[in-house]
Amino acid sequence: MEKRYIGVDLGGTNIKVGVVDPSGNLLYKTERPTRAEEGTDAVIGRITSCAREAAEASGASWDQVAGIGVGLPGFLDIPRGIVKRLTNLPWENVPIRDLLEKEWERPVMIDNDANVAALGEAWSGAGAGVSDLVCITLGTGVGGGVIAGGRLVHGVGGAAGEIGHIRMEEGGALCGCGQRGCLETIASATGIVRMAKEMAASGRKTTLAEAVQAGTLSSRDVFRAMEAGDSVALEVVERATDALARAMATLSVILNPARFIIGGGVARAGDSLFRPLREAYKKHALPSAAEGVSIVPAQLGNDAGVIGAAGLIARRGH
Amino acid sequence: MEKRYIGVDLGGTNIKVGVVDPSGNLLYKTERPTRAEEGTDAVIGRITSCAREAAEASGASWDQVAGIGVGLPGFLDIPRGIVKRLTNLPWENVPIRDLLEKEWERPVMIDNDANVAALGEAWSGAGAGVSDLVCITLGTGVGGGVIAGGRLVHGVGGAAGEIGHIRMEEGGALCGCGQRGCLETIASATGIVRMAKEMAASGRKTTLAEAVQAGTLSSRDVFRAMEAGDSVALEVVERATDALARAMATLSVILNPARFIIGGGVARAGDSLFRPLREAYKKHALPSAAEGVSIVPAQLGNDAGVIGAAGLIARRGH
Repeated sequence: MEKRYIGVDLGGTNIKVGVVDPSGNLLYKTERPTRAEEGTDAVIGRITSCAREAAEASGASWDQVAGIGVGLPGFLDIPRGIVKRLTNLPWENVPIRDLLEKEWERPVMIDNDANVAALGEAWSGAGAGVSDLVCITLGTGVGGGVIAGGRLVHGVGGAAGEIGHIRMEEGGALCGCGQRGCLETIASATGIVRMAKEMAASGRKTTLAEAVQAGTLSSRDVFRAMEAGDSVALEVVERATDALARAMATLSVILNPARFIIGGGVARAGDSLFRPLREAYKKHALPSAAEGVSIVPAQLGNDAGVIGAAGLIARRGH
Repeated sequence: MEKRYIGVDLGGTNIKVGVVDPSGNLLYKTERPTRAEEGTDAVIGRITSCAREAAEASGASWDQVAGIGVGLPGFLDIPRGIVKRLTNLPWENVPIRDLLEKEWERPVMIDNDANVAALGEAWSGAGAGVSDLVCITLGTGVGGGVIAGGRLVHGVGGAAGEIGHIRMEEGGALCGCGQRGCLETIASATGIVRMAKEMAASGRKTTLAEAVQAGTLSSRDVFRAMEAGDSVALEVVERATDALARAMATLSVILNPARFIIGGGVARAGDSLFRPLREAYKKHALPSAAEGVSIVPAQLGNDAGVIGAAGLIARRGH
């Protein structure tokens, strides 16, 4: 009887639950809304019913389920399985591991959402078979996860991989973390839009002006305008990819990874992002650390979280 | 019969061989000169005879020896146990692991010298009991080693932990690696002396002028002059500690370590280094990543290499 692993990806707007096989294939997935006004008990109850349903719908008996992994956005005490604080839900000091283990009578492990996404890509996505990699998510912010020697790097407080807060510019734009000039302020979708707006506001001629005025400008628009020859868009993309490449050069000398996996909304720009990013990385990276490094798109999309959460259990001891 | 582990620290000028117990205590140590003109066979023969002598001198039978770890300065293929190139010896593509295993009939593991030093400190030095730490050696250059989740981070080519080559200044002084503005050009003993010389040459009044003229200036002189109130020395130390603290802030968001261990000749300045370094780190580090972080001096000195090399075997599977 082949084992099954359940992965839970608890976000601010919904709970995703997936059933995963020992090779990291997602057999079944379901989603439920998360409601901020609900208490902890209600959310845990929903996770529990959802997990049992998902196991059944995937054709697995509860006996086949070897354990449950949970990815959460917030501050965690990973070794003790406690949620100290969540980003979008009013949880405080919830011993979620113990609560779920009691409910399920199965081992439960927790980790933060960016880390489990990295583990998912490393297990059965763009990093399959690669022992040392860094996963970078370019969305509203910049998140990351580090796999070293086949294992997720958590750090002592579960805060490792916070790549978005590497400081790239002395001064620079104010970041949500309170610092200035973090990578996140430059290479996130938000950062790209901000830089384009600032340049449009400074009077530079750009085809982006209309979308800026209408308040609809997206990072995708900036990449499209760059491809169409807009010089402001080109400059913005170059700033974003240059900062990201410098951060990746730093990651290379510290971790010597074989691969960088880039995901999130900004990565959907495809070659318009990857071409200048690879060029800038080649320029900034120490050749001995960059030798043979590949820079590739993430493959699992929104499923990385549930697959990686299941991987917390499946890949224990790796 | 308690196990014994042999650690070999192969440097450009000497070979150190130590016998270590399961707690990471160094029971016996011996040294032999390394001669660059000798062939590989002669050096390996010397390591071999030295290891057998050391085991005997420590009171251990060869049966007690569970394995041998070797730290080497250069480019290695760690998984295959091959020395691709050494920094100070004319070795090329030497399958040292297989050669030594055949000779000793014991498991042999290799790693680079900065990594084994970090492992030594993590095992029984300033990092004992700490799962996540970064070891930084401030000497002629700046070296480093990373321990994450209790394990040494090698990276895919064994080049992880090259902290000295994090780029801190756009432009900046030329580094041995070919880049400009690496941490090594600012925070090493060499970097500190270079900055002091440049400031003296620019006509700034300093008590260091005499030593600069005589060509005897050391980093230690700069720290002493700072303590005596020399403003040039103060500025140099502030630049060095500020750059190092910014690199440590970056390491904190990537790895979330609990401790930084600072060793090497520059660290002998003691509080003159650690006081401004801790202040600068507090200023630059993201509070959530820096919470509870300690910055402490290395404890094992020159023994870190042999102890850590032995630890490659003793701590396998950790």
